[in-house]
Amino acid sequence: MAKKPNKLKARLPRGFVDRSAEDIRATDEMLAKIRAVYERYGFDPVETPAFEYTDCLGKFLPDTDRPNAGVFSVQDEDEQWMSLRYDLTAPLARHVSENINEIQLPYRTYRAGWVFRNEKPGPGRFRQFMQFDADTVGAPGVQADAEMCMMMSDTMEALGIARGQYVIRVNNRKVLDGVLESIGLGGEEHEERRLTVLRAIDKLDKFGIEGVRLLLGDGRKDESGDFTKGAELDPNAIDSIVAFVSGTGTLENDGITELNTMAEIFSACGYGEDRIKIDPSVVRGLEYYTGTVFEAELLFDVTNEKGEIVQFGSVGGGGRYDGLVKRFTGRDVPATGFSIGVSRLMTALKNLGKLGMSDVVAPVLVTVMDGDVAALGRYQKMVQDLREAGIRAEMYQGNWKKFGNQLKYADRRNCPIAIIQGSDEREAGEIQVKDLIEGKRLSEEITDNITWRESRPAQVTVKETELLATVRGILDGQAEDRQRQNEG
Amino acid sequence: MAKKPNKLKARLPRGFVDRSAEDIRATDEMLAKIRAVYERYGFDPVETPAFEYTDCLGKFLPDTDRPNAGVFSVQDEDEQWMSLRYDLTAPLARHVSENINEIQLPYRTYRAGWVFRNEKPGPGRFRQFMQFDADTVGAPGVQADAEMCMMMSDTMEALGIARGQYVIRVNNRKVLDGVLESIGLGGEEHEERRLTVLRAIDKLDKFGIEGVRLLLGDGRKDESGDFTKGAELDPNAIDSIVAFVSGTGTLENDGITELNTMAEIFSACGYGEDRIKIDPSVVRGLEYYTGTVFEAELLFDVTNEKGEIVQFGSVGGGGRYDGLVKRFTGRDVPATGFSIGVSRLMTALKNLGKLGMSDVVAPVLVTVMDGDVAALGRYQKMVQDLREAGIRAEMYQGNWKKFGNQLKYADRRNCPIAIIQGSDEREAGEIQVKDLIEGKRLSEEITDNITWRESRPAQVTVKETELLATVRGILDGQAEDRQRQNEG
Repeated sequence: MAKKPNKLKARLPRGFVDRSAEDIRATDEMLAKIRAVYERYGFDPVETPAFEYTDCLGKFLPDTDRPNAGVFSVQDEDEQWMSLRYDLTAPLARHVSENINEIQLPYRTYRAGWVFRNEKPGPGRFRQFMQFDADTVGAPGVQADAEMCMMMSDTMEALGIARGQYVIRVNNRKVLDGVLESIGLGGEEHEERRLTVLRAIDKLDKFGIEGVRLLLGDGRKDESGDFTKGAELDPNAIDSIVAFVSGTGTLENDGITELNTMAEIFSACGYGEDRIKIDPSVVRGLEYYTGTVFEAELLFDVTNEKGEIVQFGSVGGGGRYDGLVKRFTGRDVPATGFSIGVSRLMTALKNLGKLGMSDVVAPVLVTVMDGDVAALGRYQKMVQDLREAGIRAEMYQGNWKKFGNQLKYADRRNCPIAIIQGSDEREAGEIQVKDLIEGKRLSEEITDNITWRESRPAQVTVKETELLATVRGILDGQAEDRQRQNEG
Repeated sequence: MAKKPNKLKARLPRGFVDRSAEDIRATDEMLAKIRAVYERYGFDPVETPAFEYTDCLGKFLPDTDRPNAGVFSVQDEDEQWMSLRYDLTAPLARHVSENINEIQLPYRTYRAGWVFRNEKPGPGRFRQFMQFDADTVGAPGVQADAEMCMMMSDTMEALGIARGQYVIRVNNRKVLDGVLESIGLGGEEHEERRLTVLRAIDKLDKFGIEGVRLLLGDGRKDESGDFTKGAELDPNAIDSIVAFVSGTGTLENDGITELNTMAEIFSACGYGEDRIKIDPSVVRGLEYYTGTVFEAELLFDVTNEKGEIVQFGSVGGGGRYDGLVKRFTGRDVPATGFSIGVSRLMTALKNLGKLGMSDVVAPVLVTVMDGDVAALGRYQKMVQDLREAGIRAEMYQGNWKKFGNQLKYADRRNCPIAIIQGSDEREAGEIQVKDLIEGKRLSEEITDNITWRESRPAQVTVKETELLATVRGILDGQAEDRQRQNEG
């Protein structure tokens, strides 16, 4: 026996996934709805490439303190390091800075794109995922932040998420900064510790008040035994922060004034607390936010991977980042924006039954009974005629000699109709047209809510010239049935 | 004076580009048209991620013989090498192989996606670009190749490229293999040299017969002095190949039979030589093709970067690759497909005036005359009302105190209308509505082909309650003008 060829194992790298037709169509449908809202708000698309110079990206990853960890990096021929973008905000800051003389501020743009994180993959945690961002650069006032919150709210509703099933929660970093100062964590020398505190508060949803207390104190061990170092604050400081995030703290500062202005704008525009709500526990665990921070949260229950019933939670958020462009230009270019986690939002919409059920009909299959050149030409011509009439169609392209495989293919692909022409029919200039949906219904005696109507013939023989009209008639009948079933 | 902060230079990595709103909208429009053709042909979307294990990708890059050169690679934590995909074919082969038990063959799919090449960038040569592929996997017959050629032809016409401005050129590797065998280049031991010969022939369009002769012989030096090593064939062998690619060779083999079958199918389906043409000079410089190869070429003239008038040339191509899946599965899974270079095709369509002129209207601008909270709320409410009626609108988000900047912004952004409400109007419950397009026309006394109509007032003062109706009326008038101008 001949030696077996050395086979290569086909496998996806860890943390990456292929996307199915259903997922792609659902995503496209969702992105189109989001895009329509952003366009109506006067935003235009702009996109950046996957790579940036590593120094331009900066170190603004959530949940990692190790420099350059968390990103995929390669060294270019001229020895400069490049990294795959880990979000869409840092590249936008680079884009604006590089083109600051050509860009008309305020610059209102949106973009959907893949981002990459070189992290340990986990359930629902991928190393490549899509974000959909919108930003206004060159907008100093909180009215721009308020607009972002309203746009996020409108986006949720455009996607079919009912009022009451979501809320946009808003806070301001300056408020929290006041608290941090009051417990002695002001000043540049405490930047690192402030960030640890922010990340701890950001985990309130996940770990509850007790978990946050641990993260503010000595640290927290999770169920797998992994230990997260704490901020090592003293008990009084921890109490101050916990009081603040619970909404029982008292304070007057710029942050409060800004939040009040936003609240008035929301109210003037008719966005009540059932849509946008001031909430002192929102922090967003990113170092670059300088004022308003906000988050879109979904309020309905889902079962998590541990089988627990939990609120779906955050599907995106953002805030004001006045320093990101200044890093490059040295001049103040205040900016605000937010990011939606596309896959996560799609999971949510599937849970709500607001997406999916693609109404794309599978192609009509022209089967192959004879493989001679003339026959292939005739079959292919039928297909082309159907296509020209706008009907999805294909000739069977596998090994045609096993006819059973062709019908099995049609069945698994969910083809609505099969066309058959053997040599007898060919001589008579005829074709058989099989209604595969009706055929299945009759053979399985499905007692669905459309059985009351008279059955159609599952198969007819017609003249070749009747191909188009016959196929159209059957497809129309099937479409009516589907509609009746959806209404039923 | 305070020390200047240490500024970071904002710059894109070499060979990468940002995409403008116009480019994104034009690309989306083009992709939608291509997608519609593929869907009609019975193809469904499926996508793979940016990364693959390097060994799964294989070394199938055009124009590079150095292993692993030409790709961006990183080593994972478990020491396995991963690379960014350089095309969409190798990842599809991995995807099919990994899921071969779940996938119903023939598997007809399409995908658009970014691919990456770690090469020296040049004019029109980027390190990240988009391809749009379609493939049928599990299709042994040339009828599947023929279908691909017809789909490519239909795609060109769906994009508005007229018959005669494009042609799909088709050849078969087996024909060429016969020629190579006849000059002693058969067998595995000559694989490398055969590939050099293929790549030489593939340059026919670019360098002409004499250039190809050099590449088949001792090598060729280009204008910049770069030397490309030749295949070092003897003069007789070079003559045989040149005769073959010129169409004057004679030969009978499987390749010829397959081409004849395809020609009959094209003819039966009404695809004449003005759309799809057998052409012995087509080779496609990729090692993995095993039978049919084809190319979509655009025949109209353009001026290249050197100022020479040249034919636009190839915008994509493909062929049969029966061995790519077998690398993984060990079993024969014949496949055929093609790839379109999205940016290149878009450049072509722009040249033809078939894309561009986006009909997206810029937003209505609500200007800010007073910055107190109550005023901001009122302005924002007007904006929200317009948006709710489906009209693109925004409030000015820059520094509102310089009113001139607001009008300059509206002008540069090409806003159709500006809304103004100072304190006087506010008290009277009124707004000023400025028709910025008409205003420009009147002030510049443009003598265009719509001057015959009576001018509209460039500015009206109306009650706040009239906002929506007034804006709608002006936008409708502007739309009519645009239509009249397009027809004129």
